[in-house]
Amino acid sequence: MSAPTPLTYDQAGVNYDLIDPLKVSAQRAAAATALNVAQHGFTEVKASRGESAYVVDVGPFYMASIVECLGTKTLVADDMAKLTGKSYYAGIAQDTIAMAVNDLITVGATPLVVQAYWAAGGSAWFEDAVRAQELVKGWKAACDVCQVAWGGGETPALAGIVEDGRIDLAASCTGIVNPKTRLSVGDQLAAGDAIVLLASSGIHANGLSLARKLAERLPQGYLTEIEPGLSYGEALLAPTALYSPVTEALARAGITVHYSANITGHGWRKLLRHPGELTYRIRTVPPVPAVLKFIQQQCHQDDREAYSTLNMGAGFALFVPPEQADEVVRIAEAAGIAAWHAGAVEAGPKRLFIEPLGIEFSDADLQLR
Amino acid sequence: MSAPTPLTYDQAGVNYDLIDPLKVSAQRAAAATALNVAQHGFTEVKASRGESAYVVDVGPFYMASIVECLGTKTLVADDMAKLTGKSYYAGIAQDTIAMAVNDLITVGATPLVVQAYWAAGGSAWFEDAVRAQELVKGWKAACDVCQVAWGGGETPALAGIVEDGRIDLAASCTGIVNPKTRLSVGDQLAAGDAIVLLASSGIHANGLSLARKLAERLPQGYLTEIEPGLSYGEALLAPTALYSPVTEALARAGITVHYSANITGHGWRKLLRHPGELTYRIRTVPPVPAVLKFIQQQCHQDDREAYSTLNMGAGFALFVPPEQADEVVRIAEAAGIAAWHAGAVEAGPKRLFIEPLGIEFSDADLQLR
Repeated sequence: MSAPTPLTYDQAGVNYDLIDPLKVSAQRAAAATALNVAQHGFTEVKASRGESAYVVDVGPFYMASIVECLGTKTLVADDMAKLTGKSYYAGIAQDTIAMAVNDLITVGATPLVVQAYWAAGGSAWFEDAVRAQELVKGWKAACDVCQVAWGGGETPALAGIVEDGRIDLAASCTGIVNPKTRLSVGDQLAAGDAIVLLASSGIHANGLSLARKLAERLPQGYLTEIEPGLSYGEALLAPTALYSPVTEALARAGITVHYSANITGHGWRKLLRHPGELTYRIRTVPPVPAVLKFIQQQCHQDDREAYSTLNMGAGFALFVPPEQADEVVRIAEAAGIAAWHAGAVEAGPKRLFIEPLGIEFSDADLQLR
Repeated sequence: MSAPTPLTYDQAGVNYDLIDPLKVSAQRAAAATALNVAQHGFTEVKASRGESAYVVDVGPFYMASIVECLGTKTLVADDMAKLTGKSYYAGIAQDTIAMAVNDLITVGATPLVVQAYWAAGGSAWFEDAVRAQELVKGWKAACDVCQVAWGGGETPALAGIVEDGRIDLAASCTGIVNPKTRLSVGDQLAAGDAIVLLASSGIHANGLSLARKLAERLPQGYLTEIEPGLSYGEALLAPTALYSPVTEALARAGITVHYSANITGHGWRKLLRHPGELTYRIRTVPPVPAVLKFIQQQCHQDDREAYSTLNMGAGFALFVPPEQADEVVRIAEAAGIAAWHAGAVEAGPKRLFIEPLGIEFSDADLQLR
C-alpha cells in the first residue's frame, strides 16, 4: 500500500520557478501604484506589501483587503462525491472563506465583508442542486462563524477556461484594523516574544496537489482507511479551521498580537515570513493530524520535507508578549481552537529551530515574499 | 460571409436558467448575514443588495467592495495571438479591472484598492514571458488611470480546474463613498432626472460568447475585415473603457449623481436595473461601434435583440439632475469619454423606450437583480 518512491511537491506538478518571475515583476508594478491612494488623501501601509493582506490608512482606521483562491481541493471533493454519493461542498465553502479570512487577520484586521467568486466550467455545474445548495449553506455558515457579511459575488459560467464539470472558487475579503493599534505588519515583533501555535483541522487547503498524487498511488485511493472508520478522502476534506474568532477574542481581551503568520503553502517555513533577522525556537510540537501523518509516511518524507510543505498540525502562529502567552492559549481554546505555547523568538540569525524534531530552516528555505 | 441563421445568446452556450436558482438562494443566504457586521458596530446599506457593489456604513464614510470576473475574452486574445503573433494581455488586464471598477463606482464609491486574481491552468502559462509582462503592464496602467492602488493578489496554478494554456482572470476592488452624500443606491432617482450615456469603446467584456460563436461561422474568422485595416478580432479586443475618472471628476465638480448603471450583460436592459416604477425615455442613441454593428448584422439580430444583449455604444449610464446634464457631458468629454444627454426619467410604468429605434423593454425583460 505504500508509495514506491518519495513524492515531492515539485513532482506533484507545481513549478514555482515559472510563476515566481511574474510574481516579482507584478509585486514591483504593484508597489509603484502606492501614489494612487495618496491622490485621494490616504496612504498605504508600506510594510503591508509582502504581508498576507494589503493595508491602507484611511484616517480613523486602516482598511485591509485581499483575494484568495481555494486551490485544487474541489478535485478531491468531486472524486469523493463519485465514490460516496455525498456532497462535500459545505466544507469546501468553509475552506475557501478560510483562505481569505485567515490571511486577512494576520495584519490585525477584523474581517467585515466577504465576496464569493464561483467560476464554473459551464452552466451545467449548477444543475446538481444539492451540491450548489451545500456551497451556499457552507458559505453562509462560515460567514456567520467569522461574523462577516456576505456582500455578494460572481457566479460566471466559463466554458473553455474552467474545465467542464469543475469550479474555480475564490473569496475576496475586506476588513478594518480598528483601533489602529491592532495593526500587525511586522514592526512589533521582537526577541522575547512567545510563539503560540493554533491547531489545524487537517491538511486545510494547501498540499492538495501532493495529496491527490498520493491517492493515485494507493490501491484503494481515497477510500483507504487511515484510521478505523476514517477514509483518506474524508480526512482530507475536513474543512479548514477559521481563526478570526480567536483573533477577535484576543482583541476583546486586550491582548496585543505582535505578529502572526497563516501557515499555508511552504508549511512551517511560513514561521520565517517576517523580514527581520530573528531566530524562532520551537520547543513544543503540536500533535500531527492523522491525515498528515499518513501523507508523510506514504510519501516517505522525512520530517524536514513534511514540515516544509504541510502544516503538520499548526495552522496559524501568533507572536505575543511572553507574559500573555498562557492567556492567549486559554482564549484560543475557549474559542474552540487547541493552542500551544510552543516556543519563543530570540535575537540571532534568521533561523527556525524545531527542537523536538532536530530540524532547522534558514532564510534560504523561504524566498516567498 | 453572412451567418446562415440568426445567432442568439442562448445558442452561444450560456444558460441563465440553470444559474439563476443558485443566484437566488445565494442572495437570500447573503442577505441573512447582515447582522454579522452589526456585531462590529457597523450597518450594511441594505439598498446596496441587488446593486452592483456591496456597501457598509463604517462611520465616517461608507465602504464598498466587489469581486468581478473578466469572462471569456481571453479566449479571443489567445486565438488572435496565434493568428498575429501579438500579445493582447495589456488590454485584457484593463478589461478585467474595468469589470470591477465600473461596477464599484455605480454606488458612488471612489475605488481605492484592486486585487488581482490570475488563476492559470498550470505553471506553464507563465512561461510566455511577453504575455505575462503585458498582463502586469496593462494591470498597472489601468490602476494608474483609475488612481487605485494595486494591493496584491493571487497567481495560482490550477491544473485540473482551469484548462491547460488558459487563465481565469478576475479583480476585487474596495473603495469608499466619501462624503457619504455621494452614496447612490437608488433612493435619489426620480422622475425628471436626465439620462447621460457614456460611450463604450467596443464590445467591452460582455457578449463574447456570442462574438466567438460568430467567429467560427466566418470564413476568415477573426481576421475578417470589418473596416479597412481593422480585423474583427482586433476590434473585439479594444479594451473596456474605464469610467472612474469621469465619476471622480463629477464628484470634484460637485455634481450629484442620483443613480448609475454599468451597461454589461443584458445590454440596455440594464437601464431598467433600478427597482422602482419609472419610465426611461431615450431620445438620442449613441453611434454604434463598428464591431457591434458587424455582430448585429452577421447574427441577423434585430435592434431589440442587439440592444438587449450588447452595449451598442453606451457603456455606462448616469442619472443626474436635468439642469446638470450638459455639464456632466462636458466633464465626461474632458475626461476623454464621449457622452450624450440621451434622455430622461419619467413617472410611469417600468418601461424603457428607445424612441429613435422604436424599441420598448419592460420589467419582464430584466429579471436579473
